[in-house]
Amino acid sequence: MAKNLFLLPGDGIGPEAMGEVRKIIAYMNSAMKADFKLDEGLVGGSAYDAHGVAISDADMAKAMAADAVLFGAVGGPKWDGVPYEVRPEAGLLRLRKDMELFANLRPAICYPALAAASSLKPELVEGLDILIVRELTGGVYFGEPKQIIDLGNGQKRGIDTQIYDTYEIERIAGVAFELARTRKNTVCSMEKRNVMKSGVLWNQVVTETHKRSYSDVKLEHMLADAGGMQLVRAPKQFDVIVTDNLFGDMLSDVAAMLTGSLGMLPSASLGAPDGKTGKRKALYEPVHGSAPDIAGKGIANPIAMIASFAMCLRYSFNMIAEADNLEKAIANVLDQGIRTGDIMAEGCRQVGTTEMGDAILKE
Amino acid sequence: MAKNLFLLPGDGIGPEAMGEVRKIIAYMNSAMKADFKLDEGLVGGSAYDAHGVAISDADMAKAMAADAVLFGAVGGPKWDGVPYEVRPEAGLLRLRKDMELFANLRPAICYPALAAASSLKPELVEGLDILIVRELTGGVYFGEPKQIIDLGNGQKRGIDTQIYDTYEIERIAGVAFELARTRKNTVCSMEKRNVMKSGVLWNQVVTETHKRSYSDVKLEHMLADAGGMQLVRAPKQFDVIVTDNLFGDMLSDVAAMLTGSLGMLPSASLGAPDGKTGKRKALYEPVHGSAPDIAGKGIANPIAMIASFAMCLRYSFNMIAEADNLEKAIANVLDQGIRTGDIMAEGCRQVGTTEMGDAILKE
Ligand SMILES: CC(C)[C@H](C(=O)O)[C@@H](O)C(=O)O
Ligand SMILES: CC(C)[C@H](C(=O)O)[C@@H](O)C(=O)O
Repeated sequence: MAKNLFLLPGDGIGPEAMGEVRKIIAYMNSAMKADFKLDEGLVGGSAYDAHGVAISDADMAKAMAADAVLFGAVGGPKWDGVPYEVRPEAGLLRLRKDMELFANLRPAICYPALAAASSLKPELVEGLDILIVRELTGGVYFGEPKQIIDLGNGQKRGIDTQIYDTYEIERIAGVAFELARTRKNTVCSMEKRNVMKSGVLWNQVVTETHKRSYSDVKLEHMLADAGGMQLVRAPKQFDVIVTDNLFGDMLSDVAAMLTGSLGMLPSASLGAPDGKTGKRKALYEPVHGSAPDIAGKGIANPIAMIASFAMCLRYSFNMIAEADNLEKAIANVLDQGIRTGDIMAEGCRQVGTTEMGDAILKE
Repeated sequence: MAKNLFLLPGDGIGPEAMGEVRKIIAYMNSAMKADFKLDEGLVGGSAYDAHGVAISDADMAKAMAADAVLFGAVGGPKWDGVPYEVRPEAGLLRLRKDMELFANLRPAICYPALAAASSLKPELVEGLDILIVRELTGGVYFGEPKQIIDLGNGQKRGIDTQIYDTYEIERIAGVAFELARTRKNTVCSMEKRNVMKSGVLWNQVVTETHKRSYSDVKLEHMLADAGGMQLVRAPKQFDVIVTDNLFGDMLSDVAAMLTGSLGMLPSASLGAPDGKTGKRKALYEPVHGSAPDIAGKGIANPIAMIASFAMCLRYSFNMIAEADNLEKAIANVLDQGIRTGDIMAEGCRQVGTTEMGDAILKE
């Protein structure tokens, strides 16, 4: 049966990185009879330029219908002045919300060949393998009221609302515990229960979910600020971290930077399994942004985008062997000293976007 | 004129660390005729044990009347189960709110003698000197509604509200710009304007305040998640960082950990200058917590508490020379290789809390 992929390359280096994934898909279709069917749409600034919105309803419908969405990156200085509602990020946020992609998986792994590139001492990051499970459709990102009110007298008031319901915390905790079972069986839940009521509820619900269904998994709780500290101090103490949308945004970026492999890190955003088919809606995207400063130059690192496709093979199509192969090809190419400019090191060979894609394909 | 200090040692290692500050104050009173008058109260778990609240109204009144408050630390497993309203942290939060201490200054400096203790590569942190200016009386810490609602059906809803008014952002931006002028004249403002309306307002008001009164200072804006990354990647790019209460909590902890000097870092929380006297209400506290695991053993590092007193001399009493001297004494003692257990390194001499205090006093 055909596997329908909807590509949203977006802005900046998104299209270049996506080009390398297209090559891999073409190869899999021809040499391995994989039967991927591709369609493509616009998101972010490029959608705004074409349609005046950050994603059109037509593309949104295609994303909803696809087996998986591959997303590049959005944003750039060109669109800094556009209205809040149609800013590039709004396209990504609408995809997450409308597709109900509540579970964002962000692996922070340190490729051995790149340990020296971390700003941390190599012995602290060598072999690092953390999975951050971030809640993605709730919290302060989407809670209402969310507005700026004019109070008169030159005073305005900006309001955002953090809201979490029991079921939202339960389902993301469930994902974290399930994934921990396939790893080192340890979950650390992070919130600010000493200051936030949503943090108090988060802590309670994670604790109850654990007790009810996952008591075989080791569970720890940490305040989110202490968690940020511990990530910097001794990141290898963590296996799976589960946290809310905003803390997840901050903590996963810090964790990604620790690895020295920022341009290499993928992410998966998953919905709930469909009641009938068991299939999850899913979107895969690199953790890096649109990097407008190097866009169009053919020098962007496509590895995060390719690794995102590997996650897609794994989580959307259960093509575990293929995903493993692709991830191994990435590691091999790095071991051979082939590097894009962002991860260049002494004694390595610097290549552009397409050469990197070709090298991985060859592996 | 007598200088009235109100001491709130709190829980855990707070009282031990405060003991060393008492010694320094006694010395200043006797040898330097400094005329500090001391009073002492209870806060956190120890206040809860005595009065059933995290700070009593009587102690609150003393804090309001004092020239400055010295605060130790609060919390510990003993009070994990107490009701939310009277948990140890509530005492600290009430002090901040009732004294209107809207400006929290958190220097993240790297003591040269301790650069090797950082988890970052030494060359990235040697000479590091960042000042984080965190808004402390607004945002999600205090906004209403802040509650857990029972929705029935086993579902609860946790709600917190982030609120910022123009004047709140203006005054904290003003503090950041003023302080930048005494340093490298550069401010980086951090928010999530791509997701939060309060972030949009924050960005606007900081920009306008800059234009109106501080255009001689260099101003930069960064998304808070990117800011967390950049702190880990290349912390020396920053001079003054200004950010909201919650981002400030996270980012200042990450920054503190970077320095390798966590047990050494002080903070100052300041109110607005009084219209008549020009005096600011102020509270000084170490960045580290109550460390219940090592409390009562005489091994805690008192440096952060002593450095907090140095900030007190500087900001509340304009005793700049005395503050400089005290800070230099700390650096000298570290240079001599005298260390408490938390910062112990090869070839150094390990001492306890009181010996460390004595060594600094001697200097
Ligand atoms: C682009 C932005 C809206 C987004 C977020 O804040 O979630 C990004 O930072 C991320 O982490 O995916
Ligand atoms: C103890 C706690 C309430 C406090 C905070 O979150 O502000 C602490 O983490 C801090 O940074 O001073």
